[in-house]
Amino acid sequence: MTAPAALGVRDAAAQIRRGTLDPVELVEACLERIRALDGRLAAWVHVDAEGARAAARERATEARGGRFRGPLHGVPLGVKDIFDVAGLPTTAGAAAFAHTRPAADAASIALLRGAGAVVLGKTHTTQFAYRDPAPTRNPWNTAHTPGGSSSGSAVAVAAGMVPLALGSQTVGSVLRPAAYCGVVGYKATHGLVPAAGVVPLAWSLDHVGLFARSVADVVQALGVLLGHPLEPVEARAPRLALAPELLERATPEVAAHVRACAEAFARAGARVEQVRLPASFAGVHAAGQVVLEAEAAAYHAPAFARHAADYGPEVRKLVETGLTVSAAAYIHANRARLAFREEVMPLLVAHDALLSPSAPAPAPAGLASTGDAWHCAPWSFAGVPAISLPSGLTTSRLPLAVQLVQAAGASARLLGVAGWCEGVLGPGATPVP
Amino acid sequence: MTAPAALGVRDAAAQIRRGTLDPVELVEACLERIRALDGRLAAWVHVDAEGARAAARERATEARGGRFRGPLHGVPLGVKDIFDVAGLPTTAGAAAFAHTRPAADAASIALLRGAGAVVLGKTHTTQFAYRDPAPTRNPWNTAHTPGGSSSGSAVAVAAGMVPLALGSQTVGSVLRPAAYCGVVGYKATHGLVPAAGVVPLAWSLDHVGLFARSVADVVQALGVLLGHPLEPVEARAPRLALAPELLERATPEVAAHVRACAEAFARAGARVEQVRLPASFAGVHAAGQVVLEAEAAAYHAPAFARHAADYGPEVRKLVETGLTVSAAAYIHANRARLAFREEVMPLLVAHDALLSPSAPAPAPAGLASTGDAWHCAPWSFAGVPAISLPSGLTTSRLPLAVQLVQAAGASARLLGVAGWCEGVLGPGATPVP
Repeated sequence: MTAPAALGVRDAAAQIRRGTLDPVELVEACLERIRALDGRLAAWVHVDAEGARAAARERATEARGGRFRGPLHGVPLGVKDIFDVAGLPTTAGAAAFAHTRPAADAASIALLRGAGAVVLGKTHTTQFAYRDPAPTRNPWNTAHTPGGSSSGSAVAVAAGMVPLALGSQTVGSVLRPAAYCGVVGYKATHGLVPAAGVVPLAWSLDHVGLFARSVADVVQALGVLLGHPLEPVEARAPRLALAPELLERATPEVAAHVRACAEAFARAGARVEQVRLPASFAGVHAAGQVVLEAEAAAYHAPAFARHAADYGPEVRKLVETGLTVSAAAYIHANRARLAFREEVMPLLVAHDALLSPSAPAPAPAGLASTGDAWHCAPWSFAGVPAISLPSGLTTSRLPLAVQLVQAAGASARLLGVAGWCEGVLGPGATPVP
Repeated sequence: MTAPAALGVRDAAAQIRRGTLDPVELVEACLERIRALDGRLAAWVHVDAEGARAAARERATEARGGRFRGPLHGVPLGVKDIFDVAGLPTTAGAAAFAHTRPAADAASIALLRGAGAVVLGKTHTTQFAYRDPAPTRNPWNTAHTPGGSSSGSAVAVAAGMVPLALGSQTVGSVLRPAAYCGVVGYKATHGLVPAAGVVPLAWSLDHVGLFARSVADVVQALGVLLGHPLEPVEARAPRLALAPELLERATPEVAAHVRACAEAFARAGARVEQVRLPASFAGVHAAGQVVLEAEAAAYHAPAFARHAADYGPEVRKLVETGLTVSAAAYIHANRARLAFREEVMPLLVAHDALLSPSAPAPAPAGLASTGDAWHCAPWSFAGVPAISLPSGLTTSRLPLAVQLVQAAGASARLLGVAGWCEGVLGPGATPVP
């Protein structure tokens, strides 16, 4: 039998519902795993052991009475520390001036708790969800970055500390750490999962995202966040698009790996087609960056005026640059981004998914950088759903990943084909440590 | 029997449908009226007599065959010269560098023509729909401004040259000239009537609007623009809101007039309640102006770089100011505007209409200014539907008007209460000249 802390969302919830797993036992197993590993990995800012135990006892009592809150009844949850959890501080990875102690849950937390999830605590984020690294380390090799900005959430799921964690993605902050840490990372269409109660980085681009260890686990949690059970569209002989310009920007090792995955999908029945991205792709990275700079500056301006010295160098530069962006430049950048969103739509709709690297390389060595978000950025800037699947290991045993992208609103289609691809790729390598 | 050119939209369409009015005769009557008056009033940039006659002959042939395109079959239409009409130049009231000769109709023109309307020509606009005056004169007193920016459309309808005209409102460009000229001016919820094919001033604020001589005529045309027949909600004992701060900003004469109208409505059965506008009202004028400046600058920047000297002084100042607006200031201004939109909603929803002056005073003397849009601006910046009704004449025989405002999406409710108020006010004074 699988050790409780190693159970996924769906299996844990199913065992609790059958009465073969006690929510308290599950929380204790997760806490034990955190105790054993977090000194080395630093995934957690704050473990709310007492709160989690109390919630687990309530879920256990309810379960014994045959009462289940929803599809996540008793499932432990890690929360990136830019989401408000009532009664816990929100630090946003920043200095004290930015800390708050919210009285109410973020909308997404309220939804997940309403469905029975048990908040285990807050996970490390880069400062204000930008690029100044968290102290978190990659569980596959602690000399390597776990990626960011949702560093702690990715690591907590990868290291078996929790089956489910919330993150956010403005550029590449969910799919990139998921890829670097060998877990599934997902973000829905922009705006579908409510971002209320989350410290913004750039609200036109901010997406709430999920980390889990399988597509089915993402489906179970996403249905809660969307407010209705999600039925992935069954994929048979899916039509996959492959754009050479996305492979050219990856290392030869990653490009070859994605091509090998495409061949495996083709052998399993997929039709893989070479496609050209629309001309507006060429400008979307720069355009999105301007939107990001401007919106981050607009949000941070009041605090920055008093606390500039307390900002990390990367986010300081972001805000300083953003304060110089003109309204006209912002408007044009936003239009360029939305033009790409429109122009790429026919290509996405014509395929079951666009297949891409999740990142140009496996997790880089060192903790000074959170890595390159180039492959995630276009889909964040277009606001379309995307998923990263673990797809193998390098010879030095670092996770490899592929990204699948679909059109706005097409989560059910994307998760259907993602489940199919996951089946072809086989179960991900067991999380390490 | 009413002279053809004096017929309203609904009566003209009904007579054509009954076979008692020939579309060609109606167009000729309108053209005759234009010939007689437009030398003095300058409502028209371009009268497409031949095009209108050809269209009218087609409508006449169809009508004789029992074929009717829709509820505007054979109804002459004036078009503000920022709307594209296929085959006619669009000048936007500007110098030659800005002129275009579009091959396709603006979306609104296509809808109105699809329902049978006959385009008579293009009416004068202030330059780029901002504040540099058109040559148009007020038909009630040619020494006074007709208001702007939809100057020609308001005058064409007021002077009986056409029963229906299209305008646009970004701040006060439909309701203010309607008020100054003694006609009905209407704009729907922002975005509901498509603005495609209209030269933008500030797309977050630009509304397509209508001029006609009765509420029923607006209803008939608006149904075409919305794509479905509009059934005004019948008003009985309507609940009207009156905000003292809106009266305080008007001249004593206009404030007393609006109070007298409120009393007349109350005598006829309305409940008139004093209300306080939300705190965010205080900042909405300044916020909307920043959005206007920034978006106008973003749109005009490329042409302005080459043709600054060809811009009128007001729009030049607007673009110059807009080019200095920072993205952060624009974002904050847009948020302030949307906060007002949200905060004023409960007040609007709780009443059948908010009653306000349409303008602080009757049409000012002189043609150098198009007047004060202060009373129209909040509802343009909030994107909510508003209508101006003629409500009497000053002792010097200039039109007076009242404005009614409702919540976003509530056109049917607003037009219901507007029809009720129109009945209480009695038929507007006959247009003059």
